[in-house]
Amino acid sequence: MKLATLKQGGRDGTLVVVSRDLSRCRAVPAIARTMLAAMDEWDSVEPQLRQVYEALNSGAMEGEAFDQTACHSPLPRTWQWADGSAYINHVELVRKARNAEMPESFYTDPLMYQGGSDSFIGPRDKVIAKEEWGIDFEAEITVVTGDLPMGATPEQAAKAIRLVMLVNDVSLRNLIPAERSKGFGFFQSKPASAFSPVAVTPDELGDVWKDAKVHLPLMVHLNDQLFGKPNAGVDMTFNFGQMVAHVTKTREMCAGSIIGAGTVSNKQGNLWGSSITNGGVGYCCLAEVRTYETIEQGKPATPFMRHGDTVRIEMFDAQGQNIFGTIENQVDTQALA
Amino acid sequence: MKLATLKQGGRDGTLVVVSRDLSRCRAVPAIARTMLAAMDEWDSVEPQLRQVYEALNSGAMEGEAFDQTACHSPLPRTWQWADGSAYINHVELVRKARNAEMPESFYTDPLMYQGGSDSFIGPRDKVIAKEEWGIDFEAEITVVTGDLPMGATPEQAAKAIRLVMLVNDVSLRNLIPAERSKGFGFFQSKPASAFSPVAVTPDELGDVWKDAKVHLPLMVHLNDQLFGKPNAGVDMTFNFGQMVAHVTKTREMCAGSIIGAGTVSNKQGNLWGSSITNGGVGYCCLAEVRTYETIEQGKPATPFMRHGDTVRIEMFDAQGQNIFGTIENQVDTQALA
Repeated sequence: MKLATLKQGGRDGTLVVVSRDLSRCRAVPAIARTMLAAMDEWDSVEPQLRQVYEALNSGAMEGEAFDQTACHSPLPRTWQWADGSAYINHVELVRKARNAEMPESFYTDPLMYQGGSDSFIGPRDKVIAKEEWGIDFEAEITVVTGDLPMGATPEQAAKAIRLVMLVNDVSLRNLIPAERSKGFGFFQSKPASAFSPVAVTPDELGDVWKDAKVHLPLMVHLNDQLFGKPNAGVDMTFNFGQMVAHVTKTREMCAGSIIGAGTVSNKQGNLWGSSITNGGVGYCCLAEVRTYETIEQGKPATPFMRHGDTVRIEMFDAQGQNIFGTIENQVDTQALA
Repeated sequence: MKLATLKQGGRDGTLVVVSRDLSRCRAVPAIARTMLAAMDEWDSVEPQLRQVYEALNSGAMEGEAFDQTACHSPLPRTWQWADGSAYINHVELVRKARNAEMPESFYTDPLMYQGGSDSFIGPRDKVIAKEEWGIDFEAEITVVTGDLPMGATPEQAAKAIRLVMLVNDVSLRNLIPAERSKGFGFFQSKPASAFSPVAVTPDELGDVWKDAKVHLPLMVHLNDQLFGKPNAGVDMTFNFGQMVAHVTKTREMCAGSIIGAGTVSNKQGNLWGSSITNGGVGYCCLAEVRTYETIEQGKPATPFMRHGDTVRIEMFDAQGQNIFGTIENQVDTQALA
């Protein structure tokens, strides 16, 4: 099943069921007005939403044209956004570039930070920031969960996954060192994220949802040039069951929580040769190519995003169908004086 | 005006207006069913809520008996909980105890971490945790804000403060060193917080709300013994305008966000002599007394909380009236196998 949220109708937008091919949609106020409300009562609303989904796909229900540009993030705001770093290759590279050791615990205990969830931007909204902040994108996979008790197992956690989405976890790299040195984690360095127009249930992914991972390439374009296509199912040290369970070690978790697995990163030789132009799979953030450049050439060469730059993030199934719709965020550095 | 949330009525509870003396209350479904809904439409609901408040205080409206033990946290869940460390004395002590330098920037740039806001516990609920995690309380002042644009000034931010509350920001001290070394900030070390039964508008505080600070002692009892009474208006390096503005540097902020100022801590000589028993003002967390012990005796002597221990947090006005109601959390280490 595919769901989305239109910007109209209030702070939490309007929930729509979207056809598999992303061509049509239908608002369902009699079932749930918003995605957030659907999360609260998932067990009772899910079967009703599936009926609408099947009717849309079969043509029994006509619906309206689905316009990705009218979408907000599926949850325009929610109770929790916690993002991990499950692709350890990315962490290894970043630490290697700054000559920091890689603690053994990183291979057994997921890295995770608490993000802000009060006001996401939409999938096609502009990223408003200052160039001097070091504007970067991070292309990632995320899941939306149901309720979980404290101390949930990875198996329980995997079963509580309700939806899968993509995200552009915007990062302000030049603000990170000062925040890191303060020891309280990321804050100003992590502004509002943009999620994919469409959220899908795990069963919708079929065979590519396996072991609580999405086994497909995540496609990233920077200014219309292919920048990365690493496979999200490869080199993922912790699966989503483990990531979600990590959240619940010391507290309960509320339905509608979004948990991310961090920048997708494949080893692919672990060399500069992994860039797209050299036959590799490329990257899901600028920081990673800058890290390779630092390791191999002593300093980064690729700049962070500048005014007018656009990142595009999407994922296609074996038939070439865009699964989640397209995240496309242009940077605007002029909106802030 | 004083507001509270009863546990009945769903995940977000039931909003009630509470009389100044905390004796009576009134649900207001025709105005707003929940505190969260009131936050979304504050400008239109506030005058209506004030009418009920005045009628309750004058006796024109009878209302029902107000039972603090029936309360959830005023916002049982919300979009954002970000907690700072505005009482720099506390940070100086903690760093001194572990021989860490105090960066200059700490005096000009607020420390702040993103907390989890998806499932708070109630003001009288048990803290469920394992003793080996190093269970501590932190008594603090917090504010609930309205909407703010990116880049708000401290003056704009101070004007957007809608409500003031107390909090017990439960901390699991023994989980902090490992999380700190990972560089991603607190996560499992910060379980669910408990807020005061009652949230009050800044005007309700009268003269003691000055320069966006609360100028009254915060009273902390551990197992019915006075443990701390530092003044929340003293030695607060950053006021709430500055703390809230810090949040908005790189992103918008949604109404209903809760921002905390961290463990209240007064200098009072900066010595072991500041303990209550030696005529000082005492502490708002166990970590601080353990820090004094470490500095003066080489190691901490006071243990963290054990099964059955209870912390009580409250604040009284000049007439001895309990302003926010009482937070009282008992530790239960046996609920987790």
